[in-house]
Amino acid sequence: MAEDVDSQVVNPWEVTAKDGGKIDYDKLIEKFGCQRLSDDIVQRVERLTGRPAHVFLRRGVFFAHRDFNEILDLYERGEKFYLYTGRGPSSEALHLGHLVPFMFTKYLQDAFKVPLVIQLTDDEKCMWKNLAVEESKRLARENAKDIIACGFDITRTFIFSDFNYLGGAFYENMVKVANCVTFNKVVGIFGFTPEDHIGKISFPPVQAVPSFPSSFPHIFSDKNNKVNNNLRCLIPCAIDQDPYFRMTRDVAPRIGYQKPSLIESSFFPALQGENGKMSASDPNSAIYVTDSLKDIKNKVNRYAFSGGQDSIENHRKFGANLEVDIPIKYLSFFLDDDPELEHIKEEYGSGRMLTGQVKARLIEVLLELVERHRKARALVTDEMVDAFMAVRPLPYMFS
Amino acid sequence: MAEDVDSQVVNPWEVTAKDGGKIDYDKLIEKFGCQRLSDDIVQRVERLTGRPAHVFLRRGVFFAHRDFNEILDLYERGEKFYLYTGRGPSSEALHLGHLVPFMFTKYLQDAFKVPLVIQLTDDEKCMWKNLAVEESKRLARENAKDIIACGFDITRTFIFSDFNYLGGAFYENMVKVANCVTFNKVVGIFGFTPEDHIGKISFPPVQAVPSFPSSFPHIFSDKNNKVNNNLRCLIPCAIDQDPYFRMTRDVAPRIGYQKPSLIESSFFPALQGENGKMSASDPNSAIYVTDSLKDIKNKVNRYAFSGGQDSIENHRKFGANLEVDIPIKYLSFFLDDDPELEHIKEEYGSGRMLTGQVKARLIEVLLELVERHRKARALVTDEMVDAFMAVRPLPYMFS
Repeated sequence: MAEDVDSQVVNPWEVTAKDGGKIDYDKLIEKFGCQRLSDDIVQRVERLTGRPAHVFLRRGVFFAHRDFNEILDLYERGEKFYLYTGRGPSSEALHLGHLVPFMFTKYLQDAFKVPLVIQLTDDEKCMWKNLAVEESKRLARENAKDIIACGFDITRTFIFSDFNYLGGAFYENMVKVANCVTFNKVVGIFGFTPEDHIGKISFPPVQAVPSFPSSFPHIFSDKNNKVNNNLRCLIPCAIDQDPYFRMTRDVAPRIGYQKPSLIESSFFPALQGENGKMSASDPNSAIYVTDSLKDIKNKVNRYAFSGGQDSIENHRKFGANLEVDIPIKYLSFFLDDDPELEHIKEEYGSGRMLTGQVKARLIEVLLELVERHRKARALVTDEMVDAFMAVRPLPYMFS
Repeated sequence: MAEDVDSQVVNPWEVTAKDGGKIDYDKLIEKFGCQRLSDDIVQRVERLTGRPAHVFLRRGVFFAHRDFNEILDLYERGEKFYLYTGRGPSSEALHLGHLVPFMFTKYLQDAFKVPLVIQLTDDEKCMWKNLAVEESKRLARENAKDIIACGFDITRTFIFSDFNYLGGAFYENMVKVANCVTFNKVVGIFGFTPEDHIGKISFPPVQAVPSFPSSFPHIFSDKNNKVNNNLRCLIPCAIDQDPYFRMTRDVAPRIGYQKPSLIESSFFPALQGENGKMSASDPNSAIYVTDSLKDIKNKVNRYAFSGGQDSIENHRKFGANLEVDIPIKYLSFFLDDDPELEHIKEEYGSGRMLTGQVKARLIEVLLELVERHRKARALVTDEMVDAFMAVRPLPYMFS
């Protein structure tokens, strides 16, 4: 596999650390050729948007980027850009890891006041997971409800599924991209083999072209039906999606388009420990937005890997190993209160606080998050899904 | 190349006979695994349709088939089918070879009273000929005018371009097909290499899926929006397109669809002789529907390869070699009058008739054909193109 870094594998379909250890993100940055997101950039975002940076930004969950500084440059000049993110709808319910890019994208949309396109790759799931077309389309709509529940602004947001939207200007751009990428090239980028079916080999342009405003003439055309191809695109995503956009950035100038910028996150760890992404086949590896209080309590107390010591005596003496402790990791994603998090880390790391206490606080935080999501999702009607997915202009998207 | 039969190459992009000789159609039938179209089938067509077989059928221009007998069986039982043919719009004006499948398809539509879909693969021409998207779309519309001029019945005919129509149910079928075909498989069928771009590798499903009625829900859905997937499809085409439909027939049963049937023609010969298809790069190798009387006279008299002898004396003595004579070949395509053609062959073959006389008759026949086409095309308005290409039901398509 092309993404194999000393037996570490990271690509859109597989995330495996070396020898079952942690993902080495420094090596990933070096291998992929993206840039580390520095504190300077975080401070610049705060300055430009006039609001505190999102917890995922100030705690380094989004830790890498490609030309994000260029997006900030143009924003500083008073220009605008648009956001693009997406999801492969392979499961009925989302887990917390799935929410991370959407929570962050909502923050970006609110902070920068920019339009957003969200791609649901229902076609991809037929190709990789062998889902039936109808089932994949159904899951796309179900997932759209969870995405809408994250609070996106309907006046600035277009959600589309590939089976519904692909064609026209979008397909024209797919052909332009496909003409610039050889089979050997996708083998190098994605690790395809000659025994892979041509659906997979055809797919990368589908995920590439939402990076170009001309793929959405209903949104980005002016009154003369001309699209401004210089409008830049910023893609918030997990770093396993980087191969698609490395390819896209390579092709863009050859077809007269701007390269998309990226802001990339690390992976949300499994309850059992930080050695990759969560596994859909093991429901106990993740907290789902559909989990009950009882589920959450049980999963956190039973499965969340603890960095605490094996006896209270040792724990009081040596303190918890925060580096491997999953409750601390999860709190650093979802506990917004910086002083409280610092306090917990201090107390727990020194052994004054016990694992059970940290887990109890995590359960509270997760329950609040899941409850809030559940309530928001219950309010999402089929009519709202239709409205978000309608092919329509967004006249107030930049205001 | 997979289609290389002892150095004879026949695939959708290349037709080259062995050592510059004639295409060996018997070997092609054997290699491709299709069936020879027998006199019995021709007579059966006449019996079932109650009209004389088209000149292309009774003179063996359409010489091979796949399961055409099954189409006749179901027609005999009172059932219907639909026709599918197409064109890659790479040139402004069509030549006579381009008209052959459309003239024949019109006959089939009239004789069997069935609906017809015509695919204009403007995307393919961007992928293979490196045409710009806009130019390819323009050529598709220009070519649509020539196709409409062949006399198709608008109540039974849907013309579509891939850039305009691809998406929705059509794209869903593309994904289903692509999932059944590996890269190795398309290498075997089409001779692609790892240095080919993924546009080409993605294309075969685009040409495959018009074989399935569910790709056209606006035409083939019943009042409950259900498509009858058992409706069979008959594809009239030149035999170089066979690889696409071999692939399609292989995949169809695996995705719950009927295999399309085919009726396949030999290639219309170049003026210079019968060793392949005509060359777009040499305008003197073909008669174009836009050629003037002067062009036609000049091309036939100067370039049409003659089987006559090198002196009048020898010609009177030995007669013409009809096997290699292009005027005779062209007359056998376009001179409908069987007794007259037999008379010319008899007189010319025995040396009583001279090349000049045969060419003069051919010029008359071609001029009439080209004039008729030109007049019909002049009547085709942009509104008619829009009407033929409108995505619409065809309520009287079987009546």
